[in-house]
Amino acid sequence: MSLIKPRTLNGFRDYLPAVMIPRERLMETARGVFRSYGFAPIDTPTLEYLEILTGKGSDETDRQIYRFEDNGGRAVGMRFDLTVPLARFAAQHINQLGTPFKRYHIAPVWRGERPQAGRYREFMQCDFDTIGTRNVMADIESVAVINRLLSSIGFDAFTISVNNRAVLTELLRHLDLADQSVAVLRCLDKLGKIGREKVAAEMCEVADVSAAQADKVLQLAELDGEPESIFEALPAITGGGDEALVAIDRLKDVFSGALAAGVPRGRIKIDVSIARGLDYYTGVIFETTLDDLPSIGSVCSGGRYDNLAGLYTKQELPGIGASLGLDRLLAAMESLRMLPNAATPAPVLIAYFDADHRDNYLTLSARLRDAGIANELFPDPKRLSVQLKYADSHGFRVALIAGGNEWGAGTVQVKTLATKESAEVAYSHDRPEELTSCLNRILAEELQ
Amino acid sequence: MSLIKPRTLNGFRDYLPAVMIPRERLMETARGVFRSYGFAPIDTPTLEYLEILTGKGSDETDRQIYRFEDNGGRAVGMRFDLTVPLARFAAQHINQLGTPFKRYHIAPVWRGERPQAGRYREFMQCDFDTIGTRNVMADIESVAVINRLLSSIGFDAFTISVNNRAVLTELLRHLDLADQSVAVLRCLDKLGKIGREKVAAEMCEVADVSAAQADKVLQLAELDGEPESIFEALPAITGGGDEALVAIDRLKDVFSGALAAGVPRGRIKIDVSIARGLDYYTGVIFETTLDDLPSIGSVCSGGRYDNLAGLYTKQELPGIGASLGLDRLLAAMESLRMLPNAATPAPVLIAYFDADHRDNYLTLSARLRDAGIANELFPDPKRLSVQLKYADSHGFRVALIAGGNEWGAGTVQVKTLATKESAEVAYSHDRPEELTSCLNRILAEELQ
Repeated sequence: MSLIKPRTLNGFRDYLPAVMIPRERLMETARGVFRSYGFAPIDTPTLEYLEILTGKGSDETDRQIYRFEDNGGRAVGMRFDLTVPLARFAAQHINQLGTPFKRYHIAPVWRGERPQAGRYREFMQCDFDTIGTRNVMADIESVAVINRLLSSIGFDAFTISVNNRAVLTELLRHLDLADQSVAVLRCLDKLGKIGREKVAAEMCEVADVSAAQADKVLQLAELDGEPESIFEALPAITGGGDEALVAIDRLKDVFSGALAAGVPRGRIKIDVSIARGLDYYTGVIFETTLDDLPSIGSVCSGGRYDNLAGLYTKQELPGIGASLGLDRLLAAMESLRMLPNAATPAPVLIAYFDADHRDNYLTLSARLRDAGIANELFPDPKRLSVQLKYADSHGFRVALIAGGNEWGAGTVQVKTLATKESAEVAYSHDRPEELTSCLNRILAEELQ
Repeated sequence: MSLIKPRTLNGFRDYLPAVMIPRERLMETARGVFRSYGFAPIDTPTLEYLEILTGKGSDETDRQIYRFEDNGGRAVGMRFDLTVPLARFAAQHINQLGTPFKRYHIAPVWRGERPQAGRYREFMQCDFDTIGTRNVMADIESVAVINRLLSSIGFDAFTISVNNRAVLTELLRHLDLADQSVAVLRCLDKLGKIGREKVAAEMCEVADVSAAQADKVLQLAELDGEPESIFEALPAITGGGDEALVAIDRLKDVFSGALAAGVPRGRIKIDVSIARGLDYYTGVIFETTLDDLPSIGSVCSGGRYDNLAGLYTKQELPGIGASLGLDRLLAAMESLRMLPNAATPAPVLIAYFDADHRDNYLTLSARLRDAGIANELFPDPKRLSVQLKYADSHGFRVALIAGGNEWGAGTVQVKTLATKESAEVAYSHDRPEELTSCLNRILAEELQ
């Protein structure tokens, strides 16, 4: 029989242990943070009726959906994000769930786009949303969640840029540009990439805006400095109408509330230039960049919307949410050398040295596990050099070695693999404490 | 615009928080156990080349695959189990990974079968395997992993039935039934369901076996009692040939090794009747039943195979693995009332009572979180009765209530929701200890 070539589809990938271990840890950290704020997990089917998925999408998204006819002749598709399923889910269950409804959802999505470096057709999304409240408390909490996510993952230096889209809307209304707002904001979103002049030119060209109007919009967008000075400048620039003042006050509230919630002042930036492309954001919006790696773009973005599920229900569902870019974060952590390089989740390898003592190795392994020390027992009594090579190449930190002599003397050799130091430590199945303390001490030391 | 009806496809389901919370906990527990033995996580694509998926499957599996042509004209399918992807993965990467290769994989799979009560077209699989070793150490460890999985999840009373398929094979060879072995074992697998007489009749009819031969097979299968007495009876029944004795010794080793690894004796049953349908098992096999709910069948099954990836590589990859039935376990835990009934992962609700003190609530919430106490802050200053109703219906255990008086006096009201008892506890942002100790004390109490 001829062999079938083992391969993955273009744009898809296998996750080997060395990559999957930190990826899984990242998801675990995110779950822990979400839960600590009372966000609850949900899951939805991979496959949905195609009409659900294409309801709101742009032509581009629609083209990217993996779609087919199932055995029952139904037109179905694989979800391409977690927002459309959330909208469908909320429309279907919100009366049972009640509001506020706070959920997180960590799950893969699929897009049949042309694969590029670092972009895949299957990738993980990690979203959290608070649905059913317009209160600024939920806006503040979203900023606090982002702060705790990034710091729990291990980042110190990052910036959460916050804006209120309503401030931009009020400025545009003041400038009589309400009708062109989508086009203007789309131009404005490019400010970071193409610079002031090109944005001004594009606004005039594409969005039918005068040079003076473009200048006003850019003046607002370029406000920089301490939050307080920005807050002070905003009323004059936006015209200072009642609704503009409400929008500015909301932004102030988000800032002061975030401080009260423990977000360090230096991590929050009021950036009235960010607009975020999606049309459905209506209020507070945010982006998060890593100070040491700003080039990779925002690692956590989101904002407030007025109506999540208008396609599926007449019930108005306002909310706020954001999405953590897991894959982007992982790539960043790799660049910044924040990832341990290990292909094993267990730090201790027990060498299997002497087949006559098989049961002793098994009991030792169980005793360590009972003490909370993850360990792997090598399954074959191969040469010690083979087992130590395995330990090195997999990133184990400690090898335990015991043969007939050690078992007789009631000791185990503890070999720290980074330093190649060995120590003989007392051990018996009845009294494992000396060994477990020794291991805990070694494992607590920082990896170099 | 007319609304799109929000609904899920037949055979698929949404997981609402009350179900998703324990489901996620279950997966977390499983991951923790796998890691403690050095099993590493992997992930593989949802979509594979169809030829990979249909390579080995039976006609029935093939029919159930969700398949389609992707935009590039490739015939693709959604994985229907995690074993075929593992085989493809191992064939592709084993030279890089080295052996032994120990992996776990928790991921959804899809089968377009007719939906039945409790069966879905999308469900989660949870597999662990040790590849690249024939040593009995890996067999023993698999039993130990199953024991630790079930006990970590919270079960006390369960039975791991262990057999060595080679014992059956040797008996069949001794009886001159080697050629009919698949048919005979398929009949034997029904012993628990249809009883001795019907199995004997079916063996004679379907498998071309004499009544005397069927009686011999059933005599072996019906061996019951203490492991030692079974081990004693086996040589005579199987004919006592060299290979039979080797097979029996292996079974003895698994038993004694599992005891050394800390598996309580009462949880292991040597059951020489289990054969497990799949043809590719060749050695030790196991099934796990819950003593309080045996009717739901095995919740963790698996066994040893000689060659995992023969379709994709000439490299022989022996191994052993098993699959934890997450959905079945969840259903069992619900039947046995082992699941807390909560729609929130946070036990504490902070009522938002007095909008003038917004920042105080935010800081309180952060202080509790810093102390490891997950809490949700109600986002709207609605009537207290509304907030307490929310707390009750979502399964919060404690509500914290503070208005202007409390904030002035430096106290918070702690309301235990099950007993409706309230206590006034000292609290300030600088000294949260009294409150956090009080909450930890309440939360440590067993739920009634």
